[in-house]
Amino acid sequence: MNVLGMFCARACSGLVGCRTATRARYLHSFPGITVAQIDEEVAKLLELKAQIGGDDGKHQFVLKTAKGTRDYNPKQMAIREKVFNTIIGCFKRHGAETIDTPVFELKETLTGKYGEDSKLIYDLKDQGGELLSLRYDLTVPFARYLAMNKITNIKRYHIAKVYRRDNPAMTRGRYREFYQCDFDIAGQYDAMIPDAECLKIVHEILSELDIGDFRIKVNDRRILDGMFAVCGVPDDKFRTICSTVDKLDKMPWEDVKKEMVNEKGLSEEAADQIGQYVSMQGGMDLAELLLQDQKMSQSKQAVAGLSDIKLLFSYLQLFQVTDKVVFDLSLARGLDYYTGIIYEALLTQAGMAPASTDAQNGAPVEESVSVGSVAGGGRYDGLVGMFDPKGRKVPCVGVSIGIERIFSIMEQKAETSAERVRTTEVQVMVASAQKNLLEEKLKLVTLLWNAGIKAEVMYKKNPKLLSQLQHCEESGIPLVAILGEQELKDGVVKLRVVATREEVDISRADLIDEIRRRTSEA
Amino acid sequence: MNVLGMFCARACSGLVGCRTATRARYLHSFPGITVAQIDEEVAKLLELKAQIGGDDGKHQFVLKTAKGTRDYNPKQMAIREKVFNTIIGCFKRHGAETIDTPVFELKETLTGKYGEDSKLIYDLKDQGGELLSLRYDLTVPFARYLAMNKITNIKRYHIAKVYRRDNPAMTRGRYREFYQCDFDIAGQYDAMIPDAECLKIVHEILSELDIGDFRIKVNDRRILDGMFAVCGVPDDKFRTICSTVDKLDKMPWEDVKKEMVNEKGLSEEAADQIGQYVSMQGGMDLAELLLQDQKMSQSKQAVAGLSDIKLLFSYLQLFQVTDKVVFDLSLARGLDYYTGIIYEALLTQAGMAPASTDAQNGAPVEESVSVGSVAGGGRYDGLVGMFDPKGRKVPCVGVSIGIERIFSIMEQKAETSAERVRTTEVQVMVASAQKNLLEEKLKLVTLLWNAGIKAEVMYKKNPKLLSQLQHCEESGIPLVAILGEQELKDGVVKLRVVATREEVDISRADLIDEIRRRTSEA
Repeated sequence: MNVLGMFCARACSGLVGCRTATRARYLHSFPGITVAQIDEEVAKLLELKAQIGGDDGKHQFVLKTAKGTRDYNPKQMAIREKVFNTIIGCFKRHGAETIDTPVFELKETLTGKYGEDSKLIYDLKDQGGELLSLRYDLTVPFARYLAMNKITNIKRYHIAKVYRRDNPAMTRGRYREFYQCDFDIAGQYDAMIPDAECLKIVHEILSELDIGDFRIKVNDRRILDGMFAVCGVPDDKFRTICSTVDKLDKMPWEDVKKEMVNEKGLSEEAADQIGQYVSMQGGMDLAELLLQDQKMSQSKQAVAGLSDIKLLFSYLQLFQVTDKVVFDLSLARGLDYYTGIIYEALLTQAGMAPASTDAQNGAPVEESVSVGSVAGGGRYDGLVGMFDPKGRKVPCVGVSIGIERIFSIMEQKAETSAERVRTTEVQVMVASAQKNLLEEKLKLVTLLWNAGIKAEVMYKKNPKLLSQLQHCEESGIPLVAILGEQELKDGVVKLRVVATREEVDISRADLIDEIRRRTSEA
Repeated sequence: MNVLGMFCARACSGLVGCRTATRARYLHSFPGITVAQIDEEVAKLLELKAQIGGDDGKHQFVLKTAKGTRDYNPKQMAIREKVFNTIIGCFKRHGAETIDTPVFELKETLTGKYGEDSKLIYDLKDQGGELLSLRYDLTVPFARYLAMNKITNIKRYHIAKVYRRDNPAMTRGRYREFYQCDFDIAGQYDAMIPDAECLKIVHEILSELDIGDFRIKVNDRRILDGMFAVCGVPDDKFRTICSTVDKLDKMPWEDVKKEMVNEKGLSEEAADQIGQYVSMQGGMDLAELLLQDQKMSQSKQAVAGLSDIKLLFSYLQLFQVTDKVVFDLSLARGLDYYTGIIYEALLTQAGMAPASTDAQNGAPVEESVSVGSVAGGGRYDGLVGMFDPKGRKVPCVGVSIGIERIFSIMEQKAETSAERVRTTEVQVMVASAQKNLLEEKLKLVTLLWNAGIKAEVMYKKNPKLLSQLQHCEESGIPLVAILGEQELKDGVVKLRVVATREEVDISRADLIDEIRRRTSEA
């Protein structure tokens, strides 16, 4: 039997299931085939393909970035730098170190960490050697790093891009390549102190960025699990019911209930009981109330979680951030690895991007698509142990700032603002009104550069003065150092203030100091 | 005929050429096979593999980073930040904006840009949708960005990681994931002014980093081509002879000549003539000498290149950098896209990593393996035109700082230095000698954070004073704010200077100012 011929002859008839049927029949015909044989076969066929000549050269050349990705232009980069400086400033204020990990990990490092979302992981092509995948978040590489280096306590931040083969919604700030700014505290510490600091950090960053009002929702995995138990959810359905609860920020309760009952097979009674709990929001008082709740108090897990919520709020009061924090029983967060406190920050201002309605599209959890979600995190005490050869646990809690939406808001603000975003920091333009002064200009700009002054000169032998001044206007350069025959004779430079058009002759000896004085004033 | 069976039966016998022979025979047997049929075949076999069950679950879990990659720990990150600040400071001083591009590009964007090195490109797995590859350098994405956005002039820097499936030599600072720091000037300008600024920038950065003496070699593609022409190299052998010349930094002339004659089929006479030229080094004087050279002056290309070298050196004199720049006819650089001036900076200090001798291993050109090569670049006037639908050219010149080797040197320096590398910037530790003061400490640290002071508190209810002080010693925190019952009563905080153990009571009202005063002094 000619396998190649078989496939060729059975070209897809367009019937749904055709491929699967062929595959099943095929598998049946070769019970002795091993994976290694197939790998070898594939490699040889691919070589053959290369020899035949790629894609026959018919392919039209497309000038674009990959789907779901984008370039950052200089203006966007200037805004990005500002946002990063605020965030890094906060992380450093709280004493964090920083680390970096490679953009790809061994595929198996990511396996079994993301539940259903694993299908969104980008794999690298098998070009011989290790099987690799692009990182999906910064948390799993962090846990791998801790286990690999046997680190039992660290406070670190990590700002880097992560990759998800999600359906991009770029107008809403959802990309396939996007930044995460993570802050995590690993170590065996007294309960809720590091957890509270993570919330303090979110509060500081969102306040400082000044992008509108926000709220931080808090819950605890143990409260969710306890709640499911006392509401009569079977143990093996905790996780799937939890991911249905997670949709409450995008779907009304009625639809969530339908999914629980019709799709997940939960009893209507249990669903209704869950419905009562997940509508509850409050602060420390709600935690106290639920500790007295007849049903909830029966679950040891729920009681542990509720006690910790109380303790957390007491620290949040000392940190002066309770104004924005809400204990919300509907907060679920989908990631498997959370074990305690979970939280999510949302922008509450009107005029944000609308909520996504494509709830079944498998939106990534860290980068939640709910209205204005900009940060999330929680406690994950078991993740490092998954990597440690002896299963030694390192308790961790952390937060991830999802800054793509913050960028979008900052960009919009910049566009409507009268203030221009500068993309360079040039302080002085070295210019001339006359011809044949290139050498003198290059000498002067060298003098400035060597003194650490940010300076530019046009790459033309004889540019027009007007075009030199225009360049200053356009890129916001505050000063022009103008050279002419007369200035050279007098040993001076004409310093022009672009904004006021004021001009003053400065002796060469005083020039550096004068520029420093004038640019530090600004 | 059973194709699968054929491959299985003909398991590799270990003979060199076996695979090729099989492939050729196979190709011959199926003259009618199309690429599309093979793609379909491959997809079905891979599905079959997935159904059989991956790698049979036999795989042992390995706790490591991918081959040729590494994590950066906090100490390395602190050094990296310092290096980046120096480099970015220089780029900004010269008025550069910055952009960012995605880590992967459409595969076809990278196709045909890197010559033989294309085999080192990482491809992403075809998971449906576009075929993608990880970027190999920052130059091709830059050219794609310019063409896509119809930008005809820009001065930009870009610092990001690039990816090459090379044989890693991590002890020599050669990785599969490594940083490039690129500075490029695009635009139609007067000859050699931007080119000279690129060399000025290399000079500034390497001087400021203070990692030992260096030299910048300069040559021109047109001089190389002209030289090949007048030495009698056939037109179709320019490129391959050029890549042999490129090995002169790793091989003696005799071996290079052998490769030219024996492998590349060049006449001995032509090789000897090349040998005379490529041994020449000098400055502007050498360019003048060669302009008078009977043979060289016959090549219009060589004359154009030599005239530009002369002009370049005149600008380099004005920029005060000729002390480190050498016109060196043996400098070739392998990348296809260079069209004019090329250059490479090398560390000349003794004690650097030894030169690689595995010349045939296909080392990437940008990250040259010669002794201490730390920067390289040149003019590439045709690359943007390759992306423009109408072939419109945008002249470009740029330089790439390869900083992995610089990191290694800085790390070595830091290790031998007495000065400790701090990994955090914490100014004050909030501590106490007595128990039950957690609340007061959290209040005080909140006060400090809200005032923008970098502060830490231990995540323990009742830590020992000694362990709090030890933490300060270890991480270089200069001040401790100590709270006790007495201090609380008196409305003061005991401020301790870690280095001198001096302690002084400061009123709460003055604390912020006192800390600012003491930490700005340091």
